[in-house]
Amino acid sequence: MGRRLLGGVAAILIGLAAAPAVAADLALMPWPKAVTNATGVLPVDDGLRIVWSGRRDARLERAAARFQQALAQRTGQPSTGRGATLEIVVDAADPKALTTNAREDYRLTVSAQGVRLQAAGPTGVLRGLATLRQLVQPGEQGFELPLVTIDDAPRFAWRGLLIDPARHFVHVETLKRQIDAMEATKLNVLHLHLSNNEGFRVESRRLPRLTELASHGEFYTQDQIRDLVAYAADRGVRIVPEFNAPGHTGAILTAYPELSAGPVDPTNRIGLMSLAMDPTKPETFTFLETLLSEMTELFPDAYVHIGGDEVNAAAWTGNPSIRAYMAQRGHADAASLQREFTERVRGIVQRLGKTPVAWEEVAESPVSDDVVVQAWRSSEALAHITAQGNAAIATAGYYLDLLWPGLDHYGRDPADPLATAPDRPENALGPKPAGPLSAKQASRLLGAEAALWAEVVSDEMVDGRLWPRSALLAERFWSPAEVRDPDDASRRVVIVQEGLRIDGVQDAQQRRRMAARLAPADAEAVEVLASATGPVRNFGRLWAVFDAVRNGRRPQAPKLNSLADVAAPDSLEAHRLATSVARFVGGDRGEAAALKAQLSLYRDNHARFVRAAEGAPALREAIPISADLAALAQAGLEAMDFVERGRRPPAGWKAETGLLLKRQADAAAASSSIPLVVGGAEQPPANLLIIVTPAIARLVAAAGA
Amino acid sequence: MGRRLLGGVAAILIGLAAAPAVAADLALMPWPKAVTNATGVLPVDDGLRIVWSGRRDARLERAAARFQQALAQRTGQPSTGRGATLEIVVDAADPKALTTNAREDYRLTVSAQGVRLQAAGPTGVLRGLATLRQLVQPGEQGFELPLVTIDDAPRFAWRGLLIDPARHFVHVETLKRQIDAMEATKLNVLHLHLSNNEGFRVESRRLPRLTELASHGEFYTQDQIRDLVAYAADRGVRIVPEFNAPGHTGAILTAYPELSAGPVDPTNRIGLMSLAMDPTKPETFTFLETLLSEMTELFPDAYVHIGGDEVNAAAWTGNPSIRAYMAQRGHADAASLQREFTERVRGIVQRLGKTPVAWEEVAESPVSDDVVVQAWRSSEALAHITAQGNAAIATAGYYLDLLWPGLDHYGRDPADPLATAPDRPENALGPKPAGPLSAKQASRLLGAEAALWAEVVSDEMVDGRLWPRSALLAERFWSPAEVRDPDDASRRVVIVQEGLRIDGVQDAQQRRRMAARLAPADAEAVEVLASATGPVRNFGRLWAVFDAVRNGRRPQAPKLNSLADVAAPDSLEAHRLATSVARFVGGDRGEAAALKAQLSLYRDNHARFVRAAEGAPALREAIPISADLAALAQAGLEAMDFVERGRRPPAGWKAETGLLLKRQADAAAASSSIPLVVGGAEQPPANLLIIVTPAIARLVAAAGA
Repeated sequence: MGRRLLGGVAAILIGLAAAPAVAADLALMPWPKAVTNATGVLPVDDGLRIVWSGRRDARLERAAARFQQALAQRTGQPSTGRGATLEIVVDAADPKALTTNAREDYRLTVSAQGVRLQAAGPTGVLRGLATLRQLVQPGEQGFELPLVTIDDAPRFAWRGLLIDPARHFVHVETLKRQIDAMEATKLNVLHLHLSNNEGFRVESRRLPRLTELASHGEFYTQDQIRDLVAYAADRGVRIVPEFNAPGHTGAILTAYPELSAGPVDPTNRIGLMSLAMDPTKPETFTFLETLLSEMTELFPDAYVHIGGDEVNAAAWTGNPSIRAYMAQRGHADAASLQREFTERVRGIVQRLGKTPVAWEEVAESPVSDDVVVQAWRSSEALAHITAQGNAAIATAGYYLDLLWPGLDHYGRDPADPLATAPDRPENALGPKPAGPLSAKQASRLLGAEAALWAEVVSDEMVDGRLWPRSALLAERFWSPAEVRDPDDASRRVVIVQEGLRIDGVQDAQQRRRMAARLAPADAEAVEVLASATGPVRNFGRLWAVFDAVRNGRRPQAPKLNSLADVAAPDSLEAHRLATSVARFVGGDRGEAAALKAQLSLYRDNHARFVRAAEGAPALREAIPISADLAALAQAGLEAMDFVERGRRPPAGWKAETGLLLKRQADAAAASSSIPLVVGGAEQPPANLLIIVTPAIARLVAAAGA
Repeated sequence: MGRRLLGGVAAILIGLAAAPAVAADLALMPWPKAVTNATGVLPVDDGLRIVWSGRRDARLERAAARFQQALAQRTGQPSTGRGATLEIVVDAADPKALTTNAREDYRLTVSAQGVRLQAAGPTGVLRGLATLRQLVQPGEQGFELPLVTIDDAPRFAWRGLLIDPARHFVHVETLKRQIDAMEATKLNVLHLHLSNNEGFRVESRRLPRLTELASHGEFYTQDQIRDLVAYAADRGVRIVPEFNAPGHTGAILTAYPELSAGPVDPTNRIGLMSLAMDPTKPETFTFLETLLSEMTELFPDAYVHIGGDEVNAAAWTGNPSIRAYMAQRGHADAASLQREFTERVRGIVQRLGKTPVAWEEVAESPVSDDVVVQAWRSSEALAHITAQGNAAIATAGYYLDLLWPGLDHYGRDPADPLATAPDRPENALGPKPAGPLSAKQASRLLGAEAALWAEVVSDEMVDGRLWPRSALLAERFWSPAEVRDPDDASRRVVIVQEGLRIDGVQDAQQRRRMAARLAPADAEAVEVLASATGPVRNFGRLWAVFDAVRNGRRPQAPKLNSLADVAAPDSLEAHRLATSVARFVGGDRGEAAALKAQLSLYRDNHARFVRAAEGAPALREAIPISADLAALAQAGLEAMDFVERGRRPPAGWKAETGLLLKRQADAAAASSSIPLVVGGAEQPPANLLIIVTPAIARLVAAAGA
């Protein structure tokens, strides 16, 4: 703390890889390219007065107004008008703004005289203001900014987030909150998956049956889309819409069954999943041209996503007339027929002046090199795509709906997944991961996307499923590859997520609401358990559905109101515990008392949870998990005791603790393996895993066990 | 629990006074007039299908849609359309709806066949639906309604809440959230204090200088008011606007200084407080007639509040021309002159076809009996007003800005404050409370209002300052006087407030946000302390301001971002602890483990709080309070141990614990006394009181100490 009090000019140059460790009290995420710290602070209790140098336009002024509001929210006090200056220097307009060539670099200087933010274009101002927000901290004399110079630019131009309103509709206000948080963490592409078997989610005036017959009334009007696109553009976020075809078209084919390769029964939700459009009919392409020409007008981005994944070959090969067409055209298999389909859709998109993006299946054999390919199943596909010469977006490893903790995704580098995180989550359905991309391949990697598919995500769960994990991924996609210390990421993400909540992200209140439903007389006991546990991974939450389908029973979609839906795969509480453990294990004994308090909370909560579960039967199945958490917390407290007293634990304790940890590790490993989807393994009680297990294991290891 | 599982016809008739104690698992607030329980439940996981009998109109349909949404929020699942029926039977239109004679009574029957809600008018439907929402509970087979018959009607017709956007502006969305919560708790009058020294908050087209010169840009447009009035009307809530005069007119006189009795300096915020309108100028009444005729058109309610409180006599008697006017007209004092002023304003309001409401000062000598008088300083005034023959509204004892715990307000009966709660909070400035009203006086008591003046309440604190305390007062104003068991109120208010949060009340997220500002790395440690502490009472939070004024220094308005602003006078956690203690002390040993967990949390949090305060200097001053809380929690745990082991505590423990409790009790007593305002007593550390002290004291008492 002394550093901040002293004032002065001694600057500490902070190298890239070690950056977070040195600038110990900064909580920036994504971590910038270069940070130079000086001693001293600039007080901001009176706010900041904005001074414009160079360009200034309405969009920049709105950005400045947003910043002022965010600053007042951080300090809890409106600007008095007597604050220091924030000089914003924009060198030029940027004709490439809102493209993959936008100028996002900026230089931010906080000195005792004021703040200076310099950028080559308006987007850099947005990025710099996002950093400046995160620099505000409570200090000795009130709220303050540390004196610092930051030079920053993104590693990747495409830093995306996929949201899936097709499977569970997402309200406009919810989308706007996510866009706000994207701006705050410098994500810049919102990929909206607008059409799937479950629904078509945007008004088409030329094809009105899409929403009349296949949206259950839940869709965005064109006015809403225009408003949303403008809202995102203000925040430097592009919206890339996806209209998936020829598979995943259950909704489209419900509205226009004449385009289907097979019979359509809209009442059979499972059956809809195996449909495909008929690629032999001219009407199919007339439809797609009509749809895409209307939609690319509505969504101004240069890219449009045309899908192309998981086409059910049998939907085509089971149809005699399609088989005849294939024979006539020399298509040996469905993949070959899909190449023709893709090529025709590509042509449509090209005539509309746009660039198509498609899922990796379209590149299994060479595809026209103006198609950007999104690798979703594996890094092997990414290597293959970029070797073929296509531009690519990495999504394998970043599927947030697999419900892994954020640090597991964070540890995986888009261009070199094996080197940095050999055991990190690929998509559960994909082949083995591949090694690093060559320089030439890497040059074709536009960036990466985190994806939240919504089979088991309702609108009220969106914030909690996306954040804080997307903040960690925003850093992976923006920051230098060397920024990857998980302990420091845990430390920073707690503070950054509290900032996102101040800005409006509702993960905490959603969790509380869901907990209160289950146990209104003691929602807190439920929340404590939920803060230390996460849902089963991969598609474990859907195990009962898969099991029913496998066994020919009618599947019931899970009601998204169980404890597994309340518990987040990544909680701030778990990150805080990890930070506390890292400090304690690193020799910081000042952390001991606070760490013991957090462990005691988990231990003591069990009795409270059991009492709460008495009046809330839906919670009873989680009692064994609560008991295990209490036992783990007790083991952690005992491990601390051994460490503090410098004593080696007895063999019996080691054995017992080892078994306890192993049970949790086994449950996590089982839940992280593919067979859960296709096989028959039962899920753990209440579909819950204890996510604080690694932190406890680290304490136990420190005790020499 | 067995009761609910069995099903059957054995009904338990529940008497009024004992009602909550018998219907042990219902969590209704306000408690209805009569509740008859049967055994069994009606499942609602599939929602309810509404069937209309009798009248049906657009407003009722909107109410039904709101109910459906609230039901889905409570169960976490949308209606499947296969649920039981909810038959709504409205006997007739109610021409008196949205007046003090509205028909609010209803009968609600939940049977195994479905729900029937019968009401004499639409307002009764709203009230019945509010009850039905609160009946939804988690049960053995999912969410359910207990089988029950409820006959209900309010005790008072006027059940108000005063919000003060004049001192700190309150955004429309914040007001709407409060109106939602009012509907849920059957409050029916929103009294908006729209004009004071600090600002004039509603657009006037005929007097535009009011907002141009005296609102700092923070005011409601006429469109916003019309929307708000309609929003409230939909929810059975009347909006009564207040335009205070002749005192509290600093904003009006900033805009129109020619109407002032003395010179106006808009830059002198303290000076503005002692201004008054000049009652001798015809322009003053022309202004008020212009204003009130425009405003009573905008606000359609039959009542308009004309203020009349705290007129600074010196503002008049210090002006020679006013003194001459007084001598000429035979006014011996300012009070006599104010009578003339009131009579003229009353005439204006009467000509506009409205009924005036005014603060108690206008009735210090007899006032025309068509003026409804609001007693704010004391129950003595209420006795006086009703004896004089005026209709009255009781507000003394219900000033939420005095920051007392909700149960202290709850214990006070509007018509008989002394009998039920001799030591409960009167307004800190008033004379001694008076005994019960006679039947004749009581017949003139229209009802009561809770008031939240906003000297130290910013927009982001409104939810936390109003709720859950307003829910307790809603019961005081609606339910039979005999419903007043504080333990049962604590039990119910926890569950009811969780429901209000599900419906949208933001107290929890506001507290979190404010805590996160102060200690972003461990906001939880701050929240735990805040959940067990409350701010100093009466006007202690303004002590530094009073002290500065007394000593001729320029006062600084407190920044509303300290721990005392985070901590609520009434927390769910404190109510839960009280419930748990009541059960344990009552012999329920099954509660012991959960109670110990909550006490351990407070004890163990101290270390965490100290660690959090290291990085957050603004928290350091609260460390002694955190230490005291830990010591109290430890004493509570020890007391439990004595009780469980049937042992008497040793004298040393009793003495030490007694001192600890006495220190907290003394701090609370000092903070609850008037001299803090006018005298010079320093405030406790960090302006905090430990609000769980009474619960701990009860445990200690149970140990025989």
